Amino acid sequence: MGFQIGILGLGTVGTGTARILLDPAGRHPLLRELQISRVGVRSLDKPRAVELPASMLTTDLEAIVTDADIDIVVELIGGLEPARSLILQAIANGKHVVTANKAVISRFGDEIYAAANEKGVYVMLEAAVGGGIPVIQPLKQALGVNRIKRVIGIVNGTTNYILTRMQAEGASFADVLADAQRLGYAEADPTADVDGLDAADKIAILASIAFGGRIKLDSVYCEGIRNVSAADIAYAEKLDFVIKLLAIAQEDIPEDSGSGTPQQLQVKVHPTLVAKTHPLASINDVYNAILVEGEPLGQVMFFGPGAGEGATASAVVADLLNIAAILQTETEPIPHPLLSCTHQHYCAIAPVEESVSRFYARFLTQDTPGVVGSLGTLFGDRGVSLESVVQIGMRDRLAEIVVVTHDVREGNFQQALADIRQLEAIADIPSVLRVL
Amino acid sequence: MGFQIGILGLGTVGTGTARILLDPAGRHPLLRELQISRVGVRSLDKPRAVELPASMLTTDLEAIVTDADIDIVVELIGGLEPARSLILQAIANGKHVVTANKAVISRFGDEIYAAANEKGVYVMLEAAVGGGIPVIQPLKQALGVNRIKRVIGIVNGTTNYILTRMQAEGASFADVLADAQRLGYAEADPTADVDGLDAADKIAILASIAFGGRIKLDSVYCEGIRNVSAADIAYAEKLDFVIKLLAIAQEDIPEDSGSGTPQQLQVKVHPTLVAKTHPLASINDVYNAILVEGEPLGQVMFFGPGAGEGATASAVVADLLNIAAILQTETEPIPHPLLSCTHQHYCAIAPVEESVSRFYARFLTQDTPGVVGSLGTLFGDRGVSLESVVQIGMRDRLAEIVVVTHDVREGNFQQALADIRQLEAIADIPSVLRVL
Repeated sequence: MGFQIGILGLGTVGTGTARILLDPAGRHPLLRELQISRVGVRSLDKPRAVELPASMLTTDLEAIVTDADIDIVVELIGGLEPARSLILQAIANGKHVVTANKAVISRFGDEIYAAANEKGVYVMLEAAVGGGIPVIQPLKQALGVNRIKRVIGIVNGTTNYILTRMQAEGASFADVLADAQRLGYAEADPTADVDGLDAADKIAILASIAFGGRIKLDSVYCEGIRNVSAADIAYAEKLDFVIKLLAIAQEDIPEDSGSGTPQQLQVKVHPTLVAKTHPLASINDVYNAILVEGEPLGQVMFFGPGAGEGATASAVVADLLNIAAILQTETEPIPHPLLSCTHQHYCAIAPVEESVSRFYARFLTQDTPGVVGSLGTLFGDRGVSLESVVQIGMRDRLAEIVVVTHDVREGNFQQALADIRQLEAIADIPSVLRVL
Repeated sequence: MGFQIGILGLGTVGTGTARILLDPAGRHPLLRELQISRVGVRSLDKPRAVELPASMLTTDLEAIVTDADIDIVVELIGGLEPARSLILQAIANGKHVVTANKAVISRFGDEIYAAANEKGVYVMLEAAVGGGIPVIQPLKQALGVNRIKRVIGIVNGTTNYILTRMQAEGASFADVLADAQRLGYAEADPTADVDGLDAADKIAILASIAFGGRIKLDSVYCEGIRNVSAADIAYAEKLDFVIKLLAIAQEDIPEDSGSGTPQQLQVKVHPTLVAKTHPLASINDVYNAILVEGEPLGQVMFFGPGAGEGATASAVVADLLNIAAILQTETEPIPHPLLSCTHQHYCAIAPVEESVSRFYARFLTQDTPGVVGSLGTLFGDRGVSLESVVQIGMRDRLAEIVVVTHDVREGNFQQALADIRQLEAIADIPSVLRVL
């Protein structure tokens, strides 16, 4: 048996999703049970980056969400309509849904989840926040045993890229935005990103899952980065801060709160001064990070690529895998395929001499000029290419020389070291370390 | 209905686990279905940090793993025996098992999982690696659709603490170790930590899940941090590296590899020079982090507390929750409680004027000395306490003053700003930003 997948949209993420599904070798074995049945596109003639039989493509998206053979619909067309209607139609026809559409879920999540619960189907959205970073699943599962106190995210790659470049170059918002648009990091109409609207959609979704209730999007305070000036970034730097666009959802603890006060939340997006020592301060460029604070856990942070074909497709297919695992346990008397451990073979482990890495070695030597030459020769004889050789100082009247290699087979490096130990000028090799 | 839990061991993690289970309010609703049935301890008389009925405690651990009423056994006694035998007995009696015991799983995982698969029970081990950081579940679920290329972890808090202090203080390994032992960050016999054995157990477990095969622990290359000297840390610093104890599992790509070459792995633990710009370089003190590289995902990193009562207990209870969710879907025709969205109410969101945060504001003013006094008075009148007021320079013949407040209600801050705008000496307030 297998599960039939209908994909709506064959843009960047749709292409990435199809690529993973068509090439399951070396991935979770359950992926072999997922088959692409039909793919809805806007035009049948467009050249595609992924090979699919022409018969699989259709411009009739409704035909996919009503197809009796399809088990799971993946909505990747984005925007509000027809995405919302297609999702609702898929649910009405008993399909599970996987979506990357933060705009639809943050606005119509209540309608969509009410319909899904009535039909007993799943609506999964790992790809809607943080691209490839697993954050929705951990919030639902591993972190759910905590009382969540706070979720703080850098969840918009475009604004983080702009702020990172403003910081690095001392440049103005307008100049960096124009360049980001030229390079494809910002859209022609950058409103959704730079005014914080995309981040607001995402924090509404995260808050809803973290705090277990629905969130009205218009109650999310939202301020973008248009008014962040190079001057403020420079002053913040002097005060040991960087400026980041943060999306925050946290418990509101009013000053006069008694134990009977019902829980209120703050949910907001705004540019924020972040102390340089804070883990979020070093999240740069288009990367995303989400920090979750819970009781009794403390703080954990998830970091990774917030967008891109492969990363977002990874999240989409992870949701498909989770649904398939549940469906399989419902129909067969087997343990849950993602929680049980079924492999029986032993992995082949390469002997350490065969492993390849860079090395750092420190030598104590007499007669430096001659030795540097000899080191170079003896390493070279064993095929070890050097990145740097530096005499770093003197210790006990001996010269201290530090060598860093390029990537080299460990066995070759050790042979070279053995040769070098024979040199009369070498007094000691006090340390040998690997370099990542 | 509910699920009966038997806990073996009431040390730090056992206490934390009991605390979460006894206090489910504000956590995932499914936690209410988990009941502590019996707790196995070494001594009945010891004072306990968690209140449990005396009748629940027993020194007879075998009675727990054979108790017909218990559904899930939580093994938190650590060490190899009797932990291994108790786990196997629990499995033989049809119990699911949750454990934090990396030593047992890395050595006897094959025996334990073979027994578990035969009996159709789950053995879960989120707490065995990375304390409270969700990493086992993401590897099994969200990341499993990727071809995993590499897992790199800072997975031993003690050695990371020692290396961080050696780096910060220029101190020797022996001095920092002695101090860490005095402070309770290192054990009296530090062998398992400083010689890398604990990290080797953990990377064997991570490699097994990431690459889907068993790992023989004695094939893991293991080198600890005893020989890392203050001199090497100082030289590494000059070369823009820090030294970290890394646990690495990666595909081995031999130079002459053809497409038919069977996959080999490198699995190893060693002190490593890490470029300061690398995300792992900024993981300091007792924190842990695990970086996973996959195709097509790219790199994601998980960061958080690698040990401690609350963090590790969070991971233990997360495993309990996952098992309970599966058991519930097996017996009732309901959607999976961790994947579906069932909340119906709307969260109460506090108006932004009520939210509390620190603020940064920049003022352009005439007559600086007088203005600083007036700013202080007007902020004070609205109850806004200031952390710093700095004249940061001159711009267009106006003094530029930057104010950073302590935590303050947004409404009060905005009222003070309105008052300040009335001052004749205030030319402009070009920016107001929040501070995390």
